[in-house]
Amino acid sequence: MALKRFGISLDEALLERFDALISRKGYANRSEAIRDLIRDSLVREEWEDGRKETVGTITIVYSHDKRELADALIDFQHDFYTSVLSSLHIHLDEHNCLEVIVVKGKARDIRRIADRLIGTKGVKHGRLTLTTTGKYLR
Amino acid sequence: MALKRFGISLDEALLERFDALISRKGYANRSEAIRDLIRDSLVREEWEDGRKETVGTITIVYSHDKRELADALIDFQHDFYTSVLSSLHIHLDEHNCLEVIVVKGKARDIRRIADRLIGTKGVKHGRLTLTTTGKYLR
Amino acid sequence: MALKRFGISLDEALLERFDALISRKGYANRSEAIRDLIRDSLVREEWEDGRKETVGTITIVYSHDKRELADALIDFQHDFYTSVLSSLHIHLDEHNCLEVIVVKGKARDIRRIADRLIGTKGVKHGRLTLTTTGKYLR
Amino acid sequence: MALKRFGISLDEALLERFDALISRKGYANRSEAIRDLIRDSLVREEWEDGRKETVGTITIVYSHDKRELADALIDFQHDFYTSVLSSLHIHLDEHNCLEVIVVKGKARDIRRIADRLIGTKGVKHGRLTLTTTGKYLR
Repeated sequence: MALKRFGISLDEALLERFDALISRKGYANRSEAIRDLIRDSLVREEWEDGRKETVGTITIVYSHDKRELADALIDFQHDFYTSVLSSLHIHLDEHNCLEVIVVKGKARDIRRIADRLIGTKGVKHGRLTLTTTGKYLR
Repeated sequence: MALKRFGISLDEALLERFDALISRKGYANRSEAIRDLIRDSLVREEWEDGRKETVGTITIVYSHDKRELADALIDFQHDFYTSVLSSLHIHLDEHNCLEVIVVKGKARDIRRIADRLIGTKGVKHGRLTLTTTGKYLR
Repeated sequence: MALKRFGISLDEALLERFDALISRKGYANRSEAIRDLIRDSLVREEWEDGRKETVGTITIVYSHDKRELADALIDFQHDFYTSVLSSLHIHLDEHNCLEVIVVKGKARDIRRIADRLIGTKGVKHGRLTLTTTGKYLR
Repeated sequence: MALKRFGISLDEALLERFDALISRKGYANRSEAIRDLIRDSLVREEWEDGRKETVGTITIVYSHDKRELADALIDFQHDFYTSVLSSLHIHLDEHNCLEVIVVKGKARDIRRIADRLIGTKGVKHGRLTLTTTGKYLR
């Protein structure tokens, strides 16, 4: 991994505010914080182009009283077993479960899988988080 | 306006991708693109803290056939005349109008004004855009 | 415009919370609030499919001291005069201007125009707001 | 759980489009799709008010070559063990790991934890997903 160094110029007052922000967020230094902004802009573009291979996490909350739902979710994951990397299940309380499903594939296919899961009867809330394979991000 | 220059280091492959992205987006150079990312992160924080004075634009689409709606929107803007800076009205077609209302004030008050406008009967679609007074951004 | 009526069922406690939310937001009744949620879901889909004709507003904040920038923005709008419907200019303070540019066209072309404008040297902050022609929304 | 039924009215053409959208997304019926829109609007409000107890999932991608990072992440989770419910770790490839950390607490505290984790040196990409305890959502 070859590091490259370059300079950027910024108004002093603006830099002061940015330094305050990154210290509140716990960044070690400016390079680290700016790298994060750059990487996030690249991930966002990756998702705009639906054909790139990427990774998403689907978070759903549902009531486990609905036996058929749990079964449907498991069936569903098996249908897409080539895309679903893994999943995590948490008992939030006696009724509610949270499940995170990590999916790898083309951005537009991941969106479709998320739509289906979130639209399943009994799912109270669902969201797709757009992340990345990390391959080209250093 | 005092400019300050500092160096940041970035993996070479990552920098190549970022350079490709910023050329697609039409940036003149890296400094300019990174300044934009920094300023946007500051504006986002400004809006998380509801008490800061800032600027928002509210975009609504509605059918001008509804005479009462147009009247209600004008009344509304007069009620908040200390906050509403200006507005722009466009005839999209024979039925549909688009109106952009620029509002200045505390973030949470602007949100409240936007909720009211967007919730007005007859408004088909509405959105609040979070921007800034630009004062501390250089 | 033919209205159609249909029933939906909702848990009582959930309905109570929704009623509280829509009264805070100033909606006249549930139908109105639910229509807004439905229309917004349709607009979001319109923008995911880049080829649909739609409308966006681009909000930028910049310092008017930069004469060349103002010129560049005007030139730019003339280059895209078939897409730019109108624009609004506000003097935020002695230095800062806010400009809202309303653009009509295919979603992906509007995104491209927004990228260019926001990336123009001297623009401090910019955002694209995704809205709609309103044509099929009633 | 007491269900309540009520009627809403919608323009016919708009309803047709909505029906097409929900069938693409795999919803069983309109009630189900509208309940999802309603619940999502309540979850969004929950997060605007920072003081409500809720649940978030933090997704980070990092290179496992950085031994100290993995250690830091584990230490971190132990420091917040009262908030961190569980976590899931996936090996994306020989270098990259994805970790999902499920956190329960006040919205603003979860945001702070997410900022810290995402800002940790070595984390390539991170995002906070806003979800819910599901308690009042049925």
